[in-house]
Amino acid sequence: MPVKLAEYLFHRLRQLGIGSIHGVPGDFNLTLLDYVEPAGLRWVGNANELNAAYASDGYARIKGVGALITTFGVGELSAVNAIAGAYAERAPVVHIVGTPERALQDARKLIHHAFNDGEYRRFAQIHSHLTVAQTNLWDLSTCPEQIDEVLKQCLLHSRPVYIEVPVDLVDKEVCGERLATPIRLPETTQSAARESVLARVIERIYAARQPIIVVDGESRPLGILDDLQQLTQITDWPTWSTGFGKGLLNETLPNFHGIYRGSYDNTATQRFVTEADLVLCFGPHHSSSNTFNYSNIPKDEATIFFTDSAVKLGTETVDDTYHGTADCPFSDIPGKEAINQDRLWRLLANFLRPGDIVLGETGTAGFGVRDMALPIHARVFTHVTWLSIGYMLPAAQGAALAQEELVLADDYHGLKDARAILFIGDGSFQMTAQELATIIRHKLNVVVFLINNDGYTVERCIHGRHQGYNDVAAWRYLRAPGLFGAHDDTFTGSARTWEELQRVLDNDTVRDGTGLRMIEVFLDREDAPTGPLLGYLQSQREREA
Amino acid sequence: MPVKLAEYLFHRLRQLGIGSIHGVPGDFNLTLLDYVEPAGLRWVGNANELNAAYASDGYARIKGVGALITTFGVGELSAVNAIAGAYAERAPVVHIVGTPERALQDARKLIHHAFNDGEYRRFAQIHSHLTVAQTNLWDLSTCPEQIDEVLKQCLLHSRPVYIEVPVDLVDKEVCGERLATPIRLPETTQSAARESVLARVIERIYAARQPIIVVDGESRPLGILDDLQQLTQITDWPTWSTGFGKGLLNETLPNFHGIYRGSYDNTATQRFVTEADLVLCFGPHHSSSNTFNYSNIPKDEATIFFTDSAVKLGTETVDDTYHGTADCPFSDIPGKEAINQDRLWRLLANFLRPGDIVLGETGTAGFGVRDMALPIHARVFTHVTWLSIGYMLPAAQGAALAQEELVLADDYHGLKDARAILFIGDGSFQMTAQELATIIRHKLNVVVFLINNDGYTVERCIHGRHQGYNDVAAWRYLRAPGLFGAHDDTFTGSARTWEELQRVLDNDTVRDGTGLRMIEVFLDREDAPTGPLLGYLQSQREREA
Repeated sequence: MPVKLAEYLFHRLRQLGIGSIHGVPGDFNLTLLDYVEPAGLRWVGNANELNAAYASDGYARIKGVGALITTFGVGELSAVNAIAGAYAERAPVVHIVGTPERALQDARKLIHHAFNDGEYRRFAQIHSHLTVAQTNLWDLSTCPEQIDEVLKQCLLHSRPVYIEVPVDLVDKEVCGERLATPIRLPETTQSAARESVLARVIERIYAARQPIIVVDGESRPLGILDDLQQLTQITDWPTWSTGFGKGLLNETLPNFHGIYRGSYDNTATQRFVTEADLVLCFGPHHSSSNTFNYSNIPKDEATIFFTDSAVKLGTETVDDTYHGTADCPFSDIPGKEAINQDRLWRLLANFLRPGDIVLGETGTAGFGVRDMALPIHARVFTHVTWLSIGYMLPAAQGAALAQEELVLADDYHGLKDARAILFIGDGSFQMTAQELATIIRHKLNVVVFLINNDGYTVERCIHGRHQGYNDVAAWRYLRAPGLFGAHDDTFTGSARTWEELQRVLDNDTVRDGTGLRMIEVFLDREDAPTGPLLGYLQSQREREA
Repeated sequence: MPVKLAEYLFHRLRQLGIGSIHGVPGDFNLTLLDYVEPAGLRWVGNANELNAAYASDGYARIKGVGALITTFGVGELSAVNAIAGAYAERAPVVHIVGTPERALQDARKLIHHAFNDGEYRRFAQIHSHLTVAQTNLWDLSTCPEQIDEVLKQCLLHSRPVYIEVPVDLVDKEVCGERLATPIRLPETTQSAARESVLARVIERIYAARQPIIVVDGESRPLGILDDLQQLTQITDWPTWSTGFGKGLLNETLPNFHGIYRGSYDNTATQRFVTEADLVLCFGPHHSSSNTFNYSNIPKDEATIFFTDSAVKLGTETVDDTYHGTADCPFSDIPGKEAINQDRLWRLLANFLRPGDIVLGETGTAGFGVRDMALPIHARVFTHVTWLSIGYMLPAAQGAALAQEELVLADDYHGLKDARAILFIGDGSFQMTAQELATIIRHKLNVVVFLINNDGYTVERCIHGRHQGYNDVAAWRYLRAPGLFGAHDDTFTGSARTWEELQRVLDNDTVRDGTGLRMIEVFLDREDAPTGPLLGYLQSQREREA
């Protein structure tokens, strides 16, 4: 059953559930792109490769795996930062690069998009630092196996992989026999060791007097979200998430208490967690930024950590208290007052509906969305470790596309009117703004809240609150849809006071429309959500005083 | 003489002639940025790091060396593609990265902007593939030497270098004694071997009956442009440049014949070059794209190549012919006809004035500007090997800034009204469009000709002329200045016919104004300048027919 190499590759991607490929054309990938649409895949066509890679990461976090295609050298290297982010935060992205024909490489010819020294392996070497598996397709007899192996690694580790496709191999035939067998991950094997660990976990569960559950973000790549949902419902144990874990569980259940903020949390909650005699902690991800500077990590002796490669048991305490994040209704707020971050996020939570994907860009928005009470089936994106500003707008494009595909396939909890809702600061928006054009071009259902606080407020909180380098150029943000090709009747609006915000949120088009809607929300340049950021700002003010 | 580490570093940059630093703030470089303006340097503040690095490359090609500052991980990795381009095309850029404090690194703490595995060296390893020297400032007693050594390597090779500055070292004191001695490159030493080569070169020069000169682009990093100018004037020998060498010599001299296009050149020229018995070829750069697919490389036996590390002599023929690129006046053209690329570039040459920096983005514009007759002291930017679309808009920002500094220092050939003139396709513009805001914010004197040919025409020429993947989103380009903060009276105009173009070019503001002016020129999606691109397009049409 001979098939062309490109057909083999794209057939495999389809089998994994990929419906769209992000990327940018370039002279070494053009013929490869000819096979995208015939394979039943949609070509997104982003404005640049960094944006394309960010978008495929967003897509992967919703649909389970994503792919992008770039060109040798200039294309693939622009994607590097986003591939690194997908590695750090475990988004399974298949990075496919069209490379020069093998004869040129063998002859070490001096070609363009290279360093003019005959060395062709440099860019793959760079990707070896950023991906869990790499393969250079070169010998047709082994290409199918090579492709299968890296795709398997991508799924297994939920991290990016790298595939080089020399342009002369694109339409060459390979054996298609393997396509009949879908790619499967290795089965977990029964073993005495495993049985013994399981017995110990169950023993601890039955013995627990004050047990709690913490769901961290690496539960997503572990593929255990449905099991966790059942566990928290059946046990009814007090359950917390982390920043990275936000939105992975049904947050409307009464035993769900939001994000555990360690030393930034209230005293009662801190005591309750500290006194727990059993903490089941799933998918831990202990970076400084996800752990409130290491303060929300449950103590070893009470905790069983479930990670991707081990179950970690420590040694062995009881109480019960709640910490819910209450919605905040408009009726409680004086309408003429300027909007501030203290209330904003809880208030915006009223706007959410089941199935929405809430994207909080790194900055005050990333902190803010953690305060939002989520409806069922809502998902949340915040960078928790990589924290690369510029990520979230393209990620919104990717996530909205994945959401649309799931809705069309009737695989989205029966929901039809869910949206992608992006909260993004002005400085972040400037980084990758052109991807708004891709959202417009593909008619994706995205509501953008542009948080205009006159520069890099998150940086001002950390250092340099009066410094010029934390300023950004003064854009007229609401003109962006017009530049980027939106219909002239596309909804844009702005809000400086609570009543203006309420008016915008009540607008039918904003709430129930389709396509792009954009709202500019003006906030003070030294305002941040309660928590670490405000703390940093306060210590700067004290130092200066 | 103790000085703070940041003061030492920035003092050295000032000594090298750097007046402005490009970059983006991030939490690991904020305190470092506090020292930029006190050191007498201007902080540019770009929209993202890729753009910042492109801009510092543009700045370096005009002023001799440039610098950018990014933050650990997320910042530095976004710059990778531009740093690679600076390596490939020899722009000396100092990439300074603010990194986490040493204690965190030593303890392998899991921090943000990293891979959550305690490994801190990954990003430096990546830069080791992309830069000629790297240094990690760690021990205060050796920091001044480390800085001096990498800066020397940057100048010596005219290629990028990488400096890591841990945030805890920024304000620590180092010995400032070395600052009294400017950084000097190693002197060329007199040697018997050198004398003997020189004697052989002179012997060949005196013996030559049909000698010619080819000035390629690596003559710029060799720092021999003034000598070459004298050589071509004194000898009056027929002289050609390459794409990479365009704009480095005075192109108004009668013995200058434009770019030698190898097999794409006219027969008389090809014969003349082939029959030359001596070719003095300076700064050769033999990539496929700079050599018309290796066809313009002079034959070894007649040529003496002067490269950065060797003088290459071969073995030893006569005639004389001219190939000038004639200007094309509007009066010869029917005004109502649609603009096409065949005449466009020669016509636009009328717009140029002495000292202008002409930037032809990769694509049809990059080919087109090669056809332009240049006034004296004009400089040309076209990517010749790296060919990364998206480069040229930020590079225009960097080059215009460098030009402004030279004019203000009265070091720009006595010229006061030179401009940066950017020719850029629609697809390329979309890549890095936000940098227009930096041009506006810093009031730089830039004229943008947006070549709107409905997608990636250069890619359509190569492959896929009807394919959807070569389309781009439909932007309303002339709304860009408005979004990006320009005054509402900023000149924008468009042209579809020759007479419309003439009207725009005759406009006083376009010609003699200051700040940003933007003109959208509409061209057919399958139109390209005469040369290789049209050839590719023709062979596609033949295959399809």
